[in-house]
Amino acid sequence: MNSFSISNLAYQLGSNTLVLSDLKKMYPHWNVDNVVKKTGIKKLYLSNEDEDVFNLSIKSCKKTLKNFDQTKIDCVIVVTQTARNKLPSISCMIQDKLNLKKNMFALDVGLGCSGFVYGLSVISSLFNSNIAKTVLFVCGDTYTKFLNVDNRTCRTVFSDAASSCIVQKINSKKPTKFSFLTDGSGAPDLLEIDKNIVMKGPNIFHFTTKNIPNLFNDILRKNSLKKEQIDQFVFHQASKLVIDKLTDILQLDNNKVFRNYNKIGNTVSSSIPIVLENLQKKGVIKKNQKIMLVGFGVGLSAAASVINWK
Amino acid sequence: MNSFSISNLAYQLGSNTLVLSDLKKMYPHWNVDNVVKKTGIKKLYLSNEDEDVFNLSIKSCKKTLKNFDQTKIDCVIVVTQTARNKLPSISCMIQDKLNLKKNMFALDVGLGCSGFVYGLSVISSLFNSNIAKTVLFVCGDTYTKFLNVDNRTCRTVFSDAASSCIVQKINSKKPTKFSFLTDGSGAPDLLEIDKNIVMKGPNIFHFTTKNIPNLFNDILRKNSLKKEQIDQFVFHQASKLVIDKLTDILQLDNNKVFRNYNKIGNTVSSSIPIVLENLQKKGVIKKNQKIMLVGFGVGLSAAASVINWK
Repeated sequence: MNSFSISNLAYQLGSNTLVLSDLKKMYPHWNVDNVVKKTGIKKLYLSNEDEDVFNLSIKSCKKTLKNFDQTKIDCVIVVTQTARNKLPSISCMIQDKLNLKKNMFALDVGLGCSGFVYGLSVISSLFNSNIAKTVLFVCGDTYTKFLNVDNRTCRTVFSDAASSCIVQKINSKKPTKFSFLTDGSGAPDLLEIDKNIVMKGPNIFHFTTKNIPNLFNDILRKNSLKKEQIDQFVFHQASKLVIDKLTDILQLDNNKVFRNYNKIGNTVSSSIPIVLENLQKKGVIKKNQKIMLVGFGVGLSAAASVINWK
Repeated sequence: MNSFSISNLAYQLGSNTLVLSDLKKMYPHWNVDNVVKKTGIKKLYLSNEDEDVFNLSIKSCKKTLKNFDQTKIDCVIVVTQTARNKLPSISCMIQDKLNLKKNMFALDVGLGCSGFVYGLSVISSLFNSNIAKTVLFVCGDTYTKFLNVDNRTCRTVFSDAASSCIVQKINSKKPTKFSFLTDGSGAPDLLEIDKNIVMKGPNIFHFTTKNIPNLFNDILRKNSLKKEQIDQFVFHQASKLVIDKLTDILQLDNNKVFRNYNKIGNTVSSSIPIVLENLQKKGVIKKNQKIMLVGFGVGLSAAASVINWK
């Protein structure tokens, strides 16, 4: 069996910044202060007209590849649900744009906020099959391109971003384990329809607070770990409300629960890798530490893993 | 290592049939006879307004599950690029609609005509990671929903369909091997833009006839097999032109190259599994036979494998 390392973390946010307090002028009938109090989100990054999942991804990948020998890459995995074109897949376009080799595995994964953890499980499985050794792993979503003007729920929460990293195979007696949850009964709770993404926040909040504790305990059990042995809990940055509630229910040490939603909003599939990048840059996570990753959202879908930081 | 069995193959075509000769009346300025001579495609199946990737998939899955204990299913993988909604993923919606268990792995794979082979490689890898044992594997595409009225190239070739099967883990000393090719420089050759799928047929023909022979030899080499030892070659059913050319270049026995494009058109991701269903129903493929699968198209992307029929 194998495990993996994650390195060269990078990301690219949309170019247009939006301070939430500015929304008061644009939407005087929205109670923006009240929303901000709940979500904790004060600033968003929106893609401009020219930016999309593909070119935000390319910008992020170029940062990732700055200090990496790209000839080693034998696989590109992209997590996205909001590409500009239905086809072809972004992963194939990245292969070409970055001049990566052609005898490679490339596909897009259609998932959102659980997508980074799901993607890692696919990559880790490809390692076990000897299909890949060195993966360029990209997440990218631009929800704000698919929002009606009066879409208050989403316009106060989502940012556009792409993120990227290198995932490499490592021989290990302790393979990385994963836990998954799928509940399509909540499909209408976060749905794109007629170029508008509709979110029923309270339903997703309910799904999350009801199901994440089970997933949390399941992944601890699979790893024979107690929560006290985890060095950092990296949750999808949904909002203050959600992370406060999870920290409370799971009785976690607040110092082990990093938050960046206040500064950059909910970046969907890029949310977890951006937190990892922030944690690494701040020197918070160190070699051999145990990091729990927990993603949840559209699908509805959730996934968790405990990774050993290399 | 593990291998897998494929069973309970089923499919659902779009409800509206279109005999190509009828296009003559609708488009008197198109040289339909000439097109049919090249493509060999005489009849197409188009989705009606109510049909989409999701409900065609559900109809197909119900056939697949007719003689299968669905409580065993611990994973749903859907290959599609033409779902009605950008999100959520079809795999999550299938989990709910078919009342499958919730502690399962579910994701969509964004690929087209190479997607069935790619999907098998992902499934086989999940088996090696003990993430799944019994997969409901679905392919579905409805290209005809994204075609301008005057889109002659696509309107004479593509059918809408979903297909499904059960893929089960089998312990094996001989794991199934795969070969992949990704060439995003051909991304513009099959592209959805502004709700219209644009195909540059000659470019894809060139990509296919140039690259498939290498992929073909690579997968034979990986399996230490000669082409004479393969019992059936299952190619993506692009068109008569493509399959004639491949059969010719690779010097294959025509009796080992099944064709159904003439009767149902090019069904994109469902093309290979529908051929497998047809071959099995006709009693052509038997236990322990070696079947080569070769998918190629949008991306541009190609994948090949030799499976041992169980």
